Amino acid sequence: MQNFDYMTPTRLIFGEGVISQLPKVMSAFGKKILLTYGGGSIKKIGLYDKVKELLDGFEIIELSDIQPNPKYDPSVLEGVRLCKEHNIDVILSVGGGSVLDCSKAIAAGAKYDGDVWDLITYKVKAQAALPIVDILTLAATGSEYDSGGVISRTETNDKIGYMDPHLYPAVSFLDPTYTFSVSKKQTAAGCADAMNHIIEQYFCEDATLLNDGFCEAGLKSLMINAKKCLDDPRDYTARAEMMFACTLGCNGIYSLGNSPSGWPCHGIEHALSAYYDITHGEGLAIITPRWMTHILSDKTVGRFVKYGVNVFDIDSTLPPFEIAEKAIKATYDFFESIGIPMHLKDVGIDDSRISEMAHHIAVNEGLENAYAPLTQQDIEKILIASL
Amino acid sequence: MQNFDYMTPTRLIFGEGVISQLPKVMSAFGKKILLTYGGGSIKKIGLYDKVKELLDGFEIIELSDIQPNPKYDPSVLEGVRLCKEHNIDVILSVGGGSVLDCSKAIAAGAKYDGDVWDLITYKVKAQAALPIVDILTLAATGSEYDSGGVISRTETNDKIGYMDPHLYPAVSFLDPTYTFSVSKKQTAAGCADAMNHIIEQYFCEDATLLNDGFCEAGLKSLMINAKKCLDDPRDYTARAEMMFACTLGCNGIYSLGNSPSGWPCHGIEHALSAYYDITHGEGLAIITPRWMTHILSDKTVGRFVKYGVNVFDIDSTLPPFEIAEKAIKATYDFFESIGIPMHLKDVGIDDSRISEMAHHIAVNEGLENAYAPLTQQDIEKILIASL
Repeated sequence: MQNFDYMTPTRLIFGEGVISQLPKVMSAFGKKILLTYGGGSIKKIGLYDKVKELLDGFEIIELSDIQPNPKYDPSVLEGVRLCKEHNIDVILSVGGGSVLDCSKAIAAGAKYDGDVWDLITYKVKAQAALPIVDILTLAATGSEYDSGGVISRTETNDKIGYMDPHLYPAVSFLDPTYTFSVSKKQTAAGCADAMNHIIEQYFCEDATLLNDGFCEAGLKSLMINAKKCLDDPRDYTARAEMMFACTLGCNGIYSLGNSPSGWPCHGIEHALSAYYDITHGEGLAIITPRWMTHILSDKTVGRFVKYGVNVFDIDSTLPPFEIAEKAIKATYDFFESIGIPMHLKDVGIDDSRISEMAHHIAVNEGLENAYAPLTQQDIEKILIASL
Repeated sequence: MQNFDYMTPTRLIFGEGVISQLPKVMSAFGKKILLTYGGGSIKKIGLYDKVKELLDGFEIIELSDIQPNPKYDPSVLEGVRLCKEHNIDVILSVGGGSVLDCSKAIAAGAKYDGDVWDLITYKVKAQAALPIVDILTLAATGSEYDSGGVISRTETNDKIGYMDPHLYPAVSFLDPTYTFSVSKKQTAAGCADAMNHIIEQYFCEDATLLNDGFCEAGLKSLMINAKKCLDDPRDYTARAEMMFACTLGCNGIYSLGNSPSGWPCHGIEHALSAYYDITHGEGLAIITPRWMTHILSDKTVGRFVKYGVNVFDIDSTLPPFEIAEKAIKATYDFFESIGIPMHLKDVGIDDSRISEMAHHIAVNEGLENAYAPLTQQDIEKILIASL
């Protein structure tokens, strides 16, 4: 078991109707709010109006149109400008993980005089950030309970994940009813994203018994509840269980004391999203089983056996490699069963830039240090197998 | 799934050698430290000297001889007096859950002008508390990661658990090597305490799939690792896994969104400890299987089936009540197998005060609202079955 240093200071306020506490929560941070949101789905579900009504009396500046795979330019830069111009006290992020990730970069940038990209690329360590409150409308990324964010810079094909302890949201409002209207496509992609977060933590050199059990429970809960959400989008319990399992995805609780894994599927997928702007969870679902097949070896087979037996109830008396292959197939089949397009070509990616992406990933993602080390050649093979 | 409001602001610094960070951590809180500890085991393992050496330059006032089932008089009262007299900045608790629970009551009392008992009994809500840092030497109570404490008042046979958000430790140092010297008796009792924490949260009306998996993983990890610790007290990995599973016991992560259970075994055991000053974990181990047998019914059998199949691998095709009975027996057998005395008479409790204790529990513990409601008569039956 590895040493660790862990703290998650975020307050989670979970359940139907909890938004009534918004005015009290916001007033602890000040009067000037930067309200961040995406393409308008929060208006369709009435959440925008509700927030404005609840925050009557606050001074609200808006930053809208934040895109999936949120962009440094214009969203982050514009948000930072607004914060500085209006002397903002607190950011209220209303939406999914993309809006929240963008809000985190803005929060750090608002307290920094230089180029915000320096913070995102760790050239400069953030010394402070504006407080962030979020109202989540999509179960997926776990950004609502972690200190990280992912920002894309289109002109350089960079999609960079960064973490900083100042970036834990102060308060996350998690009302599962706000996810009732999430489309089947996004529900499935969210499930795949959260499952991959757990898988990235599960496949490592040295995992505790407790963490393995937590991960296996998380994966089973996500698979069962995602199916229920797809069958009945207004199934409160299923939406709630899925939302909470996603929330725990990246805050460390699934792997405290485990050895680092390198998060290889995320490293690979970030290039896919950066080059082609695809849906992150779909990219992960496509990559995951191909990565699994690629890394299956005498060294890793034991982890696959545990995964197969405990997550998919595969007969533990079968030969190890047979269990492993069945487990990989079960992973693929599950993603396919919830409607995810399982080939890169299905999401508009052909073989024309595979080598370029593999090079980009190998140079930027440090996957030579992953649980199963990946060279540029390995990455290229995984991408080709995913076509 | 139930609504919840959750935050655990404690920083966990976990692993061998982490104590080297103590001076830096303490200096954030000030120079005047109240060092609290128990009967001297921290001196035997060299930890006392190490702490004094690391904190050279700080002003340290000591409160020693804090007992198991820590006492309001003299320990809490004396600690509060010392804090006020010396204008203490921070409490450093070095020991197990009893020292820490006592330190929490002192921390609250130091910032309150009235009778500290008012805070413990919720007559007055604490408005502040001194910061607490702890160095844990016993894996058991989970106090290092929760906001609660249990304080006993001998003259009234009260053993009162209370919680207050000011009482989360600021920082908990968790070095598993400090538990190498913990006796077999205390190792087993610690395991039983932590297992019961999980069992109290598992048996409830409405539990999520995720929580059930977490609880089952926690129970299995504790059972496997406690056995390893008993076989080889210096097995670092086993001590580490046990320590961390215990740490999560009472901070909520095993039951966020579950309906409240009432923690009935704790309600009953607190009276045993208050009247007879027995080891808390042993009392819980004795009560737990008898409580299980008492509450087994058509309403509860489903939970027992899940518990039996998933924790003890009992054949799921057997009739439900047979699974339940096997699960209860397996619980009893496990506690017995780690050397816990499994009858009240083994720990010095006869039938002379059973009625009096049952009355005390029924009046004070609110168990009529537990998952399986318990009247005074029910409690008495459970105690008699435990003799």
